[in-house]
Amino acid sequence: MPLDTPKDPAIAAKAALDPENFALANCIRALSIDAVNAANSGHPGAPMGMADAATVLFRNHLKFDAKNPDWPDRDRFVLSNGHASMLQYSLLHLTGYEDMTLDQVRNFRQWGAITAGHPEYGHAKGIELTTGPLGQGLAMAVGMALAERRLAAEFGGDLVDHRVYVMLGDGCLQEGIGQEAISLAGHLGLGKLIVLYDDNSITIDGPTSVSFSEDVPARLAACGWHVQSCDGHDGRALDAAIAAARAETAKPSLIAMKTVIGFGSPNKAGSHDAHGAPLGTDEAALTKEALAWAAAPFEIPSDLAQKWRDIGIRGASDREAWEARLAAKPAELRDEFARRLSGTLPAGYEDTVKAARDALFAGPQTVATRKASQMALESLTAALPEMLGGSADLTGSNLTRVKAVDSQYTREAPGRYIGYGVREFGMSAAMNGIALHGGFIPYGGTFLVFSDYARNAIRLSALMGVGPIYVMTHDSIGLGEDGPTHQPIEHLASLRAIPGLTVLRPADTVETLEAWDIAIRNRHTPSLLALSRQAVPQLRLEAGDENLTAKGAYVIRRFGEGRDLTLIATGTEVALAVEAAQALHAEGMSVAVVSMPSWELFDAQPEAYRQATLGDAPRIAIEAAGVFGWTRYVASEEHVIGMKGFGASAPAERLYQEFGITAARIVERARTLALASPASQVLG
Amino acid sequence: MPLDTPKDPAIAAKAALDPENFALANCIRALSIDAVNAANSGHPGAPMGMADAATVLFRNHLKFDAKNPDWPDRDRFVLSNGHASMLQYSLLHLTGYEDMTLDQVRNFRQWGAITAGHPEYGHAKGIELTTGPLGQGLAMAVGMALAERRLAAEFGGDLVDHRVYVMLGDGCLQEGIGQEAISLAGHLGLGKLIVLYDDNSITIDGPTSVSFSEDVPARLAACGWHVQSCDGHDGRALDAAIAAARAETAKPSLIAMKTVIGFGSPNKAGSHDAHGAPLGTDEAALTKEALAWAAAPFEIPSDLAQKWRDIGIRGASDREAWEARLAAKPAELRDEFARRLSGTLPAGYEDTVKAARDALFAGPQTVATRKASQMALESLTAALPEMLGGSADLTGSNLTRVKAVDSQYTREAPGRYIGYGVREFGMSAAMNGIALHGGFIPYGGTFLVFSDYARNAIRLSALMGVGPIYVMTHDSIGLGEDGPTHQPIEHLASLRAIPGLTVLRPADTVETLEAWDIAIRNRHTPSLLALSRQAVPQLRLEAGDENLTAKGAYVIRRFGEGRDLTLIATGTEVALAVEAAQALHAEGMSVAVVSMPSWELFDAQPEAYRQATLGDAPRIAIEAAGVFGWTRYVASEEHVIGMKGFGASAPAERLYQEFGITAARIVERARTLALASPASQVLG
Repeated sequence: MPLDTPKDPAIAAKAALDPENFALANCIRALSIDAVNAANSGHPGAPMGMADAATVLFRNHLKFDAKNPDWPDRDRFVLSNGHASMLQYSLLHLTGYEDMTLDQVRNFRQWGAITAGHPEYGHAKGIELTTGPLGQGLAMAVGMALAERRLAAEFGGDLVDHRVYVMLGDGCLQEGIGQEAISLAGHLGLGKLIVLYDDNSITIDGPTSVSFSEDVPARLAACGWHVQSCDGHDGRALDAAIAAARAETAKPSLIAMKTVIGFGSPNKAGSHDAHGAPLGTDEAALTKEALAWAAAPFEIPSDLAQKWRDIGIRGASDREAWEARLAAKPAELRDEFARRLSGTLPAGYEDTVKAARDALFAGPQTVATRKASQMALESLTAALPEMLGGSADLTGSNLTRVKAVDSQYTREAPGRYIGYGVREFGMSAAMNGIALHGGFIPYGGTFLVFSDYARNAIRLSALMGVGPIYVMTHDSIGLGEDGPTHQPIEHLASLRAIPGLTVLRPADTVETLEAWDIAIRNRHTPSLLALSRQAVPQLRLEAGDENLTAKGAYVIRRFGEGRDLTLIATGTEVALAVEAAQALHAEGMSVAVVSMPSWELFDAQPEAYRQATLGDAPRIAIEAAGVFGWTRYVASEEHVIGMKGFGASAPAERLYQEFGITAARIVERARTLALASPASQVLG
Repeated sequence: MPLDTPKDPAIAAKAALDPENFALANCIRALSIDAVNAANSGHPGAPMGMADAATVLFRNHLKFDAKNPDWPDRDRFVLSNGHASMLQYSLLHLTGYEDMTLDQVRNFRQWGAITAGHPEYGHAKGIELTTGPLGQGLAMAVGMALAERRLAAEFGGDLVDHRVYVMLGDGCLQEGIGQEAISLAGHLGLGKLIVLYDDNSITIDGPTSVSFSEDVPARLAACGWHVQSCDGHDGRALDAAIAAARAETAKPSLIAMKTVIGFGSPNKAGSHDAHGAPLGTDEAALTKEALAWAAAPFEIPSDLAQKWRDIGIRGASDREAWEARLAAKPAELRDEFARRLSGTLPAGYEDTVKAARDALFAGPQTVATRKASQMALESLTAALPEMLGGSADLTGSNLTRVKAVDSQYTREAPGRYIGYGVREFGMSAAMNGIALHGGFIPYGGTFLVFSDYARNAIRLSALMGVGPIYVMTHDSIGLGEDGPTHQPIEHLASLRAIPGLTVLRPADTVETLEAWDIAIRNRHTPSLLALSRQAVPQLRLEAGDENLTAKGAYVIRRFGEGRDLTLIATGTEVALAVEAAQALHAEGMSVAVVSMPSWELFDAQPEAYRQATLGDAPRIAIEAAGVFGWTRYVASEEHVIGMKGFGASAPAERLYQEFGITAARIVERARTLALASPASQVLG
């Protein structure tokens, strides 16, 4: 069905540039207008402005097969400006992704629908990641491109050869994390990363000139990108630009597309009024008239619908050819490829863990838990080729680089260790992208205090249900001289407050190995290891195969029969608790010491186990961190030996003394508590 | 004392470029080497590499008077790469800042010394801000430059005319916040911002080529900066570059100085080994020999010491001239200038608040608390010219722009409203810089969930003890359709965990006004207002002048004599609690409803008040946020009506229903509790 020519000459001029593309794009515009109007909530302007480019991309370039959305060698499509979600839902519906029904589109932003306000990973096939928090889509895309290149190096370019396409807006480029991603991608020459920038000159507060006047292409060129500019409503120009971007394999590509937000709307196009509010019934009608779109709401003319469905299966032959190539591979390679992509651990993994455990029991060591982590990594990375290491420029401090991953990921060769640079947020989002891509278990290090910089990426790991491993060393005032800017206080509590994140603060070499084992098995939730700078004795000395850390908390020492007092501690403070318990026992008190490496894992235990572990006696908690949150387990914050303010710059031992995190103070508090007991102990 | 010529020809060649500057710079190098060695901890490499540039800056350009360090029109010096702290301590000591004694330098990084591992604001005069978390020094400097320009516009360029000089390294430029600051500064043409980039090609993980290969000058030029490059060890070249940067008034300036980290160290110069570890005794001796430095550790030859002291008082005449200009001003202007810089509120402020209160009591309104905030701002910004507003591109959502501040801060004219762009972290750090500069009460808005992006800047506000006001709207699942990426869950807990931050979540128009009053009075601690998107009824109806929010929590309703139950709620859930209490009272229960807008303020109340407010009856807490932390006030998390996981995309009312945050559920929980009482209620 040839559409009527739009009456508005400016729109007609754009339509004439590539009439079929324009007509197909109008399907996206119409659905976006209708869904946002129906929800009476949402962002019509960006889908309307980006529709032409998205149409070109899906029609001529994106490698996908809507009927086989999990095909591993598909291109990845990332809508980094997630508020444009109706663009993606329209595309998925039109190209025939089965779960993206018209009913789902009609129920945009409603309870139970897969069409959330922003694209949510796991809601529907074809949504490769959750976006909305600006800049992170781009940064996750960098991770996907990193993963693709490494996986291709491992399994061959005939099995792994796909691109990552990103659409984004001004917000993603204003956010600092956007620059972190841009800088890293340019540095590593990620040629399969292609970004389409919706340069519509509008942000929520009005024209971008309010706050943003830089030369974006020049900035990206300075960062080693291949840059082009074109008219974002000219299908042919867009097609040529994407083709040129594909041809450039040594650099990531930016296509700055000059677009009109709310394209087609007579009264709102080009204005921030089109950004975040429905057009409304009247303006929707005027817009459709301007676009020469005659169909009823939510209806797609059948010829256009058929063309879109054809686009959806365009990649089927590519997929079949790929399957044939895979089938021709040796069974061993096929199996390993399947294993890697499924996230299954290899046969023999348990033996590796057992051997590492046995070695620790055979030769106990007093080391920092970051060092214990390094020891664990030596074994684990050797056994698990999927482990892909890195650090935000703190390798020597995080101790994240070990023999098996001692090959730098460079522009020339994708090794197993990524120098993320001083970019904690970019690293964390990239790890999410690597995890989403599949084939890898990414881990990356920084100081625990700088989890602040990466925080929303950690949240997104949990929200999406992916399993990167955050290695956060220097986990308390025990880091010493660097002072309060570098000493985490509120961070453990803040991280424990994130739903779905497993925070692990191991006490010694054995718990550290156990924590790594847990983190590696957690393929659908993120894990964060809080590790010390300073040395602690190995407390776990009795050989055994049970991963006690997996219980979250357990009695690590008992002094005396019965229980007059329970000391609960985490990480480096467990040794202090044991020392205090010994002293108290010498005074005649029966004391149980509970090591609690993970609150989340402990809370998931059966009630009876939790009750038996924590006991009925008065409790004191010890942790060299803010006391906030500990009332979950103890009667009041007065029963916590911890920090109430910021740290200071001095040697670690001095800080523990000055802030009163000592065995002597535990003993003193226990005596007070014993005098007041049992009235003061009130939680069952 | 002419120093001997260094024997190493490369060093001698550098020394010959500007022998006096070189000799003065050696004083910094020697002190830095000695202090780091004495502490056996610290970062010698950066001070050694930046010493020549810092010497030029202090010697010829920086406007300061070491004997009058608080002189308001001094230039600001920002060491953004705070690990180079010994550079700054050396400069302060050498130029004669009285508190920076040699003893303090000797006690670098020791308990009680003002010479912390990283520069800490408040420890010593001349330390204008706390640095260490990379990138934020630059972003705070942008805030200082913003403040300077606005203050000059208000009080005249003859009273306010100073520059902000920043020294920084690769890390500050890799961090995303660095780019946010760069982009904003370029956009606003902050010509008095001059950045000296220590381009030493080294980061912790090795050469910058591991992770950083962009063309930094080109990137900054693309962002509207004036850029120069020079040899960072050539005093004359540096002098010319800084002079050129000062001459450029329409753009911020970057001087990329090619330097050698650990300059002078025969075995560690140019290597990351010089970055974060002491040189050690042997290498220190070799280095001093290479530099032809003959003095004993911590000793400065007397002629050089004198020259440095002369530099320290170089600005005295400028200061005197400035004081004369100030003295010549009308008394009214002088007084207002002094008031603004001291952070004192004006006479009449209390009347403004009272009038606004009275208006609320006279005409109660059901509005969102963000709208209540807008109403409060209408009065307050009109009364307080020091209030400087802004938003991270969410003005229409945050409702932060009101009549009195309705003038955009642009390149051409520094208005009272700053379009920070989609840069939450950059905004927050800039607000810290504005607050540090003095003369303003900065406030800025974003969504509460995106406090994640800004988190470490909020922490730094608290650590430094400055008082920006964070306006965080869309504070719960009540924001509705935007979905889980935009719905804060763990954020209130995470923010409450930060020591020194006052988190305020007001329940209605009156509490919102009170919260603003508190935040405005908090000039030495940061405040964060969590405000709703959805409307709530005005619950405070009894006129009165007491700021009840300042008590943190108070009984807002009593139903019945005595107390069978206490419902504690915050923000939008207080109305729900009142509704539930009414229903429970109808069933015969006596219920007190406690509104708790601020945990921190409540915890600071006398024990007796806290006890009387919370009472002895069983308690239930209601908050549309994660339950984490509420055990501070209730017996267990089972007694909290809140969120245990992430939100979802749907209209707000539906979400409250689906997640069970309803009056009906409170009633049901209360009944269960009443059956179990008093055993289940265990906290006194």
